[in-house]
Amino acid sequence: MSSIRYEHIKTCKQTGARLGKLHTPHGTIDTPIFMPVGTLATVKAMSPEELTELGSQIILSNTYHLWLRPGEDIVKEAGGLHKFMNWDKPILTDSGGFQVFSLSENRKIVEEGVHFRSHLDGSKLFLSPEGAMDIQHALGSDIMMAFDECPPYPATHEYVKQSIERTTRWAERCLTHHKKSGQDKTQALFGIVQGGEFQDLRNQSARDLIAMDFPGYAIGGLSVGEPKDIMYKVLEETLPLLPEDKPRYLMGVGSPDALIEGVIRGVDMFDCVLPTRIARNGTCFTSGGRLVVKNKKFERDFGPLDPECDCYTCKNYSRAYIRHLFKADEILGLRLTSYHNLHFLLKLMRDVRTAILNDNLLEFKEAFFEAYKLNIENPKNF
Amino acid sequence: MSSIRYEHIKTCKQTGARLGKLHTPHGTIDTPIFMPVGTLATVKAMSPEELTELGSQIILSNTYHLWLRPGEDIVKEAGGLHKFMNWDKPILTDSGGFQVFSLSENRKIVEEGVHFRSHLDGSKLFLSPEGAMDIQHALGSDIMMAFDECPPYPATHEYVKQSIERTTRWAERCLTHHKKSGQDKTQALFGIVQGGEFQDLRNQSARDLIAMDFPGYAIGGLSVGEPKDIMYKVLEETLPLLPEDKPRYLMGVGSPDALIEGVIRGVDMFDCVLPTRIARNGTCFTSGGRLVVKNKKFERDFGPLDPECDCYTCKNYSRAYIRHLFKADEILGLRLTSYHNLHFLLKLMRDVRTAILNDNLLEFKEAFFEAYKLNIENPKNF
Repeated sequence: MSSIRYEHIKTCKQTGARLGKLHTPHGTIDTPIFMPVGTLATVKAMSPEELTELGSQIILSNTYHLWLRPGEDIVKEAGGLHKFMNWDKPILTDSGGFQVFSLSENRKIVEEGVHFRSHLDGSKLFLSPEGAMDIQHALGSDIMMAFDECPPYPATHEYVKQSIERTTRWAERCLTHHKKSGQDKTQALFGIVQGGEFQDLRNQSARDLIAMDFPGYAIGGLSVGEPKDIMYKVLEETLPLLPEDKPRYLMGVGSPDALIEGVIRGVDMFDCVLPTRIARNGTCFTSGGRLVVKNKKFERDFGPLDPECDCYTCKNYSRAYIRHLFKADEILGLRLTSYHNLHFLLKLMRDVRTAILNDNLLEFKEAFFEAYKLNIENPKNF
Repeated sequence: MSSIRYEHIKTCKQTGARLGKLHTPHGTIDTPIFMPVGTLATVKAMSPEELTELGSQIILSNTYHLWLRPGEDIVKEAGGLHKFMNWDKPILTDSGGFQVFSLSENRKIVEEGVHFRSHLDGSKLFLSPEGAMDIQHALGSDIMMAFDECPPYPATHEYVKQSIERTTRWAERCLTHHKKSGQDKTQALFGIVQGGEFQDLRNQSARDLIAMDFPGYAIGGLSVGEPKDIMYKVLEETLPLLPEDKPRYLMGVGSPDALIEGVIRGVDMFDCVLPTRIARNGTCFTSGGRLVVKNKKFERDFGPLDPECDCYTCKNYSRAYIRHLFKADEILGLRLTSYHNLHFLLKLMRDVRTAILNDNLLEFKEAFFEAYKLNIENPKNF
């Protein structure tokens, strides 16, 4: 019996989009959902109360980063990640697999796990499937992820085949270790389907993981540099393989277009640093496309970031003021843009859920894309 | 008729401390009061709503900084500083005099004003009494400050004498220009008593400025490197010279001990960047003295910054978590310490006002100092 339960409400009549609820030990979330990323036990520049005000129902935090700083033992001693960071709603932690492959140096993969060097100080580290479980047990997240290898794009069929077979063996070890710990009563473990752009390997990976009966499945290894049409093709061919009574999570995706396209193909959960990362550079999502608020042309623009937006930032501050804050390196600037960008994606997902309910997701998508393409900075940049 | 009015409620029976209210166009403030500093139209790391929640009744902003960035014309076009920064309570702006003398390079003082170079890009700038008024008129602050020279410490008697005489002539020009503008109906202009450590010059400066009948007076040129006993002596000898029916403002002072000692000597208003500046380095005021939260010893300390404190930070976060945020360069860390330090000083001033009301300010001071000296970092460091 899993500690989480997916409740399917309806499937869109126009697309594969699913409306549902995911019940977790720290509360119920509406799917499809976007999860803001709190890499180091904080969603950058935001307070937990602001996240709640924005309608964040679940956040993601990173096993690899918390393992290095402050160390999972400290988080555990604090009473777990929820208490440590003052967030009492659901938390999903990744496994560290992606960071080991994207951030670390000198990595060497062996059957036991991965030897690599810290991206912070170059010290020698080793992470195994069992280790990734132990860390996530110490953190106490509601949803844990299996330790996988995320192959780069492009990679050869031969390499990816070996990789998914190892990822499957690691997934078995994760599951065994998780069950043995007894923590499976309060923490749910998701499997991660890999396979790169190769559909036969995606099929093989999905089949193997489904046989292990995880309470949820992620699609990993996408949004790693491949063209978006490849990502969409993989989703179209892979998602129908997954059990309908379990949640599906597309890892690392957060651009407005990819969220909508992902939902249409049946994805329930997304996460990405994109909204907060670009916000700290002064780039904002708006209903008319991306806007770079530092631009000179906004110097005397006393209108809101997005005239269509009713968030705290847009109700109270002008482009001119926010531009000034960025030019003067003032922290309030990136607080305001981070808040706005998170609001934009969380509202988008609320609108998407309403559109699924009303069976007009395709019309919603068309109207959204039409407006969004009127991008004043770069029409091609979603 | 001035646009502000000082209402004297009572004078402490034990000391020269005054309890009062200052009525301004944007609301009434309780004195004695501490004014958080919003240098560039934002109190660093804080939102206006947080300042209100903290009990900030008035903030200070800097004429010199806003003149350079974004430029006072942009602030004026936005509808003034209150609207630009989303703060509808009182604002006091300094005159730029202090920054011209402390930040800028290659300054040359002439009777007309000061030639100097920007601290940002080295460009040539000139500021005169009339210019400082014009900028503050564009900003629209409730309380403006006269353009003065702030002599360094130490300085010779001869230098300071020439300086205060010029400051007096500049004050006359400020007043004339201010009245001519008609802005004196909505903005009050304070004079600044200078004179360094020389009491005869403080007397002369006070006498000259009082003759001009400003609606409020500041004591400038203190907290510029002189020992604290010199500062207290100057206050003791200068404050009694000032009219009792007008507010007295001690510029640039914000350490807990100096706030209490200033109030005891009759000061009504204070400002300082200290609480927010040290907060961004991880140094916190606590009832037991300053605490450097980044220290290794707090790694597993799951108690609040200050066990005696009931602020948002102390109610929700541990020293271990805040230390982690600082070690990881996370913005939430300095948001939490900035919030806490401002709360500490604003609560201190609330307690001081209550003590004046109850005629037990000396007992309050003794108890506060007794606890505060139990400084775990440095017993001498207030």
